[in-house]
Amino acid sequence: MEFIAGIKQKETKEISDILAQGISGKVKINGYIHTIRDMGEVAFVVLRKREGLVQCVYEEGVTNCVLKELKEGMTVEVEGNLHEEERAPLGFEVRLTEVTVLSSPKEGTMLPLPISKWKMKTSLETKLNYRPISLRNIRERAIFKIQEGIIRGFRDFMFSQGFTEIRTPKIVAGNAEGGANVFKLEYFGSKAFLAQSPQFYKQTMVGVYDRVFEAAPVFRAEKHNTTRHLNEYTSLDFEMGYIDGFEDVMAMETEMLRYVFTFLGEKYDKELKLLEVTLPKIESIPAVRFDEAKVLISEKYNRKIKNPYDLEPEEEVLIGKYFKEEYESDFVFVTHYPSKKRPFYAMDDPADPKFTLSFDLLYKGMEITTGGQRIHSYDAQVAKMMARGMNPEEFSNFLMIHKHGMPPHGGLGIGLERLTMKLLNEQNVRETTMFPRDVSRLEP
Amino acid sequence: MEFIAGIKQKETKEISDILAQGISGKVKINGYIHTIRDMGEVAFVVLRKREGLVQCVYEEGVTNCVLKELKEGMTVEVEGNLHEEERAPLGFEVRLTEVTVLSSPKEGTMLPLPISKWKMKTSLETKLNYRPISLRNIRERAIFKIQEGIIRGFRDFMFSQGFTEIRTPKIVAGNAEGGANVFKLEYFGSKAFLAQSPQFYKQTMVGVYDRVFEAAPVFRAEKHNTTRHLNEYTSLDFEMGYIDGFEDVMAMETEMLRYVFTFLGEKYDKELKLLEVTLPKIESIPAVRFDEAKVLISEKYNRKIKNPYDLEPEEEVLIGKYFKEEYESDFVFVTHYPSKKRPFYAMDDPADPKFTLSFDLLYKGMEITTGGQRIHSYDAQVAKMMARGMNPEEFSNFLMIHKHGMPPHGGLGIGLERLTMKLLNEQNVRETTMFPRDVSRLEP
Repeated sequence: MEFIAGIKQKETKEISDILAQGISGKVKINGYIHTIRDMGEVAFVVLRKREGLVQCVYEEGVTNCVLKELKEGMTVEVEGNLHEEERAPLGFEVRLTEVTVLSSPKEGTMLPLPISKWKMKTSLETKLNYRPISLRNIRERAIFKIQEGIIRGFRDFMFSQGFTEIRTPKIVAGNAEGGANVFKLEYFGSKAFLAQSPQFYKQTMVGVYDRVFEAAPVFRAEKHNTTRHLNEYTSLDFEMGYIDGFEDVMAMETEMLRYVFTFLGEKYDKELKLLEVTLPKIESIPAVRFDEAKVLISEKYNRKIKNPYDLEPEEEVLIGKYFKEEYESDFVFVTHYPSKKRPFYAMDDPADPKFTLSFDLLYKGMEITTGGQRIHSYDAQVAKMMARGMNPEEFSNFLMIHKHGMPPHGGLGIGLERLTMKLLNEQNVRETTMFPRDVSRLEP
Repeated sequence: MEFIAGIKQKETKEISDILAQGISGKVKINGYIHTIRDMGEVAFVVLRKREGLVQCVYEEGVTNCVLKELKEGMTVEVEGNLHEEERAPLGFEVRLTEVTVLSSPKEGTMLPLPISKWKMKTSLETKLNYRPISLRNIRERAIFKIQEGIIRGFRDFMFSQGFTEIRTPKIVAGNAEGGANVFKLEYFGSKAFLAQSPQFYKQTMVGVYDRVFEAAPVFRAEKHNTTRHLNEYTSLDFEMGYIDGFEDVMAMETEMLRYVFTFLGEKYDKELKLLEVTLPKIESIPAVRFDEAKVLISEKYNRKIKNPYDLEPEEEVLIGKYFKEEYESDFVFVTHYPSKKRPFYAMDDPADPKFTLSFDLLYKGMEITTGGQRIHSYDAQVAKMMARGMNPEEFSNFLMIHKHGMPPHGGLGIGLERLTMKLLNEQNVRETTMFPRDVSRLEP
């Protein structure tokens, strides 16, 4: 009988092991052959490992293999001697004595794009077509480490504030956001949909845990093929009970963002430097009413107001510009959106029910968050449904929570890929999506 | 111009604040009215808060409201004086002076099930029909706190071992596990599927980060309506490169489980006690070959081997029983599953290609994990596809990684709800699923 216990302590070292133990003596490491540069007497064989690139030096007669037999894309285990070397990416190099090939790419294949280039300068289309390979580029993969950091920071902050992490179903019978942009599904003879948001479920779970969050995929069948739309994206959602108003939700988001950027600075410094990202410093975020924002930018930038009920993308850009110029803020909350453009669960402003107790957060001129206070009273929720021509009976599962009591509550949803895009100053949300799904892209 | 900054410091306290500050003086708290017990001169009004139940004492003439106006399901903000009280759930009570009602349930409604009972004794069917309300029961909600703890522990451990968290698409063009149990989707005129697992993508990302993990929903259109099948569940997946064999994957899982149970013991002690859960102590996990396990239990329990290629549920139960009796282990790895029953990406055992370098982990007689080593060579992967009558051209996006080089690698997927079910000794996986989806259940 065999027994499986602790993780085998491997002889091979990671970069952090080497930096911790000091640059001297023999070392064994493994990795991908990222590049080979033949200089005649010696050759630089750069290994790609999860923590970075390690410069190895091949020397004929010293290294136990034939240089020509090594190829980019192979994975190897090597042995050699550590030497300090200022010009190497990590300040050291490994002078190779032994090389063992672990695996090889297919004979005679050429890389479809120059992943070992520092900046690939490859078109987005090509990068996406070869995503499994283009992500092997050092800068490309750094994007998604930073994205990992955003999610981690988000979750850490939520836990610190007493939120509970929930798992809500993605296959649903009805949809929260309404409209036509919902994917339909065959479900054992019933009609089902893919969840556009965890809205009903996160409100439900406020009745259980007071404060809840989820970071999970959502699905929108929007036909827009723009630089900012995706048909599947990661939504960072939270929902909190016992609020005094939707300002509590905005304050929670403000603090969350402060925390996330601090966390990134501490834990993802290497990737931020690599991509030359400057983290925003948030003290407070200005907030402006929707209708006032419209007028502000209309006057300042001499632009006619066309649609009084929603912000056009260009208006979002101008509001961003205005608050950057006037208040040096990359972020601005736009509050009190018209009731007409907000979902049926949004609470209307008692002071003027044409508007809702809601907000969007714009980051560098683009909406990255939608949130607000929700209706908690059964009668008020049913009345709003009726006023919209909806049939409350179709929502009996959702209304169950209002029927049996809900605290005043509100919450928000943040588009992770958009937040990452804006932080990294990318021009297309697909740049910051691991495997984007859009109207014309379902693969890889 | 308004500015949104730090989270408002509320006057209302959470249970942990009170316990930290000491049981004396005035306090303001909010919560749900969980139960009201009228004792004549006084009444106990128990508030449900995210951290537990707070006993409040209503006294006529002292408390500023009429008892009859308070109802279960209301949310309130109350003020009162703290007193130590041994018989109260937390060792203290609040003698109410002021009660402000924040929200009320619908007039004249009755709860569909007795959520304030310590043990509800309500049928699973009823609990699921009223899930939004049944989760408000203290024991029900504790189940999903423990589940949160499992995911947290899993992620923490993965990060500690150098794994990168990835986000893979749930809408896919092809499917990894094959077979008919896949949900079909209308996708802008193309045919698409819901991902049965992140298999292709996690293997892909090993080529980028060496070690990756994801905790996310997966979808299986299985028509089984059993106590252990779900059509949507949370899969804890990891995949790691540079392995010497699939034993490395099993060792990583063993250590992960040790970590998770330790983490639960430290952070979720309250919930574990509430549900009377004993955490398993893992030193090592026995491993037995698939074919040997079949023979072992056939001999020991005098049972004929019917299907030589797969384990029947009853066989899993008996293997679990055997290893509990013989080795006092709740866990057992079953290794070397027949090639016939494993997917095309599984690596065959060079010593006997009828079997694969793979394993399942059984926990208390039920499979909770499937894993193994994957094929990394392009030629070997294409050959196995051809041998199965598959067309490699349909998998060109997946084969891109083999073509351009992959390290030896392997990984696994764990069913979160099953793991939770077995830990809590539940008899049906729906008990440990927040909002289960099965052949006949799509709501709530």
